[in-house]
Amino acid sequence: MSVIHKFKGDTSIYGWQGVNGMVPTEEGIKDTTMHILLGKDESEAHFITRYFRVEAGGCSPLHQHPHEHEVVILHGKGTVQINDDVTEVTPFDAILISGGDMHQFKNTSDEPLGFLCIIPKLAS
Amino acid sequence: MSVIHKFKGDTSIYGWQGVNGMVPTEEGIKDTTMHILLGKDESEAHFITRYFRVEAGGCSPLHQHPHEHEVVILHGKGTVQINDDVTEVTPFDAILISGGDMHQFKNTSDEPLGFLCIIPKLAS
Repeated sequence: MSVIHKFKGDTSIYGWQGVNGMVPTEEGIKDTTMHILLGKDESEAHFITRYFRVEAGGCSPLHQHPHEHEVVILHGKGTVQINDDVTEVTPFDAILISGGDMHQFKNTSDEPLGFLCIIPKLAS
Repeated sequence: MSVIHKFKGDTSIYGWQGVNGMVPTEEGIKDTTMHILLGKDESEAHFITRYFRVEAGGCSPLHQHPHEHEVVILHGKGTVQINDDVTEVTPFDAILISGGDMHQFKNTSDEPLGFLCIIPKLAS
């Protein structure tokens, strides 16, 4: 069934109606919250769109897995490491991380870093 | 292979390094450009992330298809029609349109309406 999650309108917090934020507990993740926006509860969806917010000084884990990520930066400033390469990221940069590639996002600024990260349903 | 398409930095235009915009020609689409950001050229990707920009007065076609859309509004203001329901959309609203549902985006403002729209690879 189609669904609309309205943004709550406060870009200092980022929140959506009908979506609860959660704190991922994977080893290596730091000061990061996740909102699963679309696809998890819709049985027919082939992929899941999540929003991540990484606080100043925070990071996602440095890890790899078989599935790909498609990422679009929404706000803030940081870096993405893909294998041995580290690249600065700023709003609206689009990043595909192939399955098997080591990767990590870090917030290198004083403001929250926010991005959308889409994964295939089978990986969830 | 992983890839980064840096945003060109001009939010009055929206453009990415290594990505060419195109004008879809489907019947019913009006004043809309599309940038295919991620997933089309990466053989292992299971889904494709596209950016659409709908100019003032423009719209996407009113249509349906078997695959789902996952959409996040980036800028501007408009409406989404899903079957018989029309809802106003503004930045960061998250919308899943199920396969088979009639749908259309319209720009109802004087500024461009921009959104990400993700589709499964098999639908491209």
